[in-house]
Amino acid sequence: MNLAELTKTQSIPTKKGKNFTAIDAGKFADLFQYELQHPLRDKPVYGKLFIKDHLDLNSMQVSLNRLPAGIAVPFTHKHKANEELYIFIGGKGQIQIDGEIIDVQEGSCIRVAPDGDRSWRNNSESDLYYIVIQGREHSLKGDTFDDGIPGEQPVKW
Amino acid sequence: MNLAELTKTQSIPTKKGKNFTAIDAGKFADLFQYELQHPLRDKPVYGKLFIKDHLDLNSMQVSLNRLPAGIAVPFTHKHKANEELYIFIGGKGQIQIDGEIIDVQEGSCIRVAPDGDRSWRNNSESDLYYIVIQGREHSLKGDTFDDGIPGEQPVKW
Repeated sequence: MNLAELTKTQSIPTKKGKNFTAIDAGKFADLFQYELQHPLRDKPVYGKLFIKDHLDLNSMQVSLNRLPAGIAVPFTHKHKANEELYIFIGGKGQIQIDGEIIDVQEGSCIRVAPDGDRSWRNNSESDLYYIVIQGREHSLKGDTFDDGIPGEQPVKW
Repeated sequence: MNLAELTKTQSIPTKKGKNFTAIDAGKFADLFQYELQHPLRDKPVYGKLFIKDHLDLNSMQVSLNRLPAGIAVPFTHKHKANEELYIFIGGKGQIQIDGEIIDVQEGSCIRVAPDGDRSWRNNSESDLYYIVIQGREHSLKGDTFDDGIPGEQPVKW
């Protein structure tokens, strides 16, 4: 199942190079332009854009999200193998993990282990914006800086 | 090397449960409160917060970033094993990969393969905000929705 194909509406222009893929998904306030047929829901979802397949990502799945005021995700879910990170970048809401409720706002970052039973909602009067990232649990190896290789040439612009 | 320890200034209060860890990193405009001793730079860096060690993440490293107007990252870098994703959430700037320059703004998402030689700058007159995620190349397995397990009970708030 290719999520790039499931994201209907307009296609997203893609720029590719040997070592990169780039898209411009547009402003977060305009995320409703993307329509997604989520397999757990009978109607299309608006305001959630999965970008893995658009970008050829192979270490993570990522979604960009706008959840309108007063809306709650209508189910909880767990994962089989993937850790999830929720980064809230605007608005206010709540997330619950195994029944424990946490208030979230810009700058709230929540790691959820695969077995955490999670759901979230926008219980405020303005839109909630967030990014969700999933990666395979225990897949990252070594130290952050050890993985980096400094360039040999000065930066040119 | 523990990046939570390298992030000096104040410690970040952490909330933990069996299946989650949560922090409130504060507003992106306040990211200069965090000081980081980056091994490639002789002075501390402000406005870059790595959150992996704060959150006990094990599938990804993630940084929250504010780059002031007119500032360029003073080096290029590659990676040994990790794919990187840059998500721009505010402001305007440029990223270059292997010398190819791309304009970026809110909603720009750029995957860079480990071997891509990358650098970026804020060539605008206001701050640039972005999130950088790295995960081990080719570590994600299976389909996005196949990894999810629907909850057995209705959501309660």
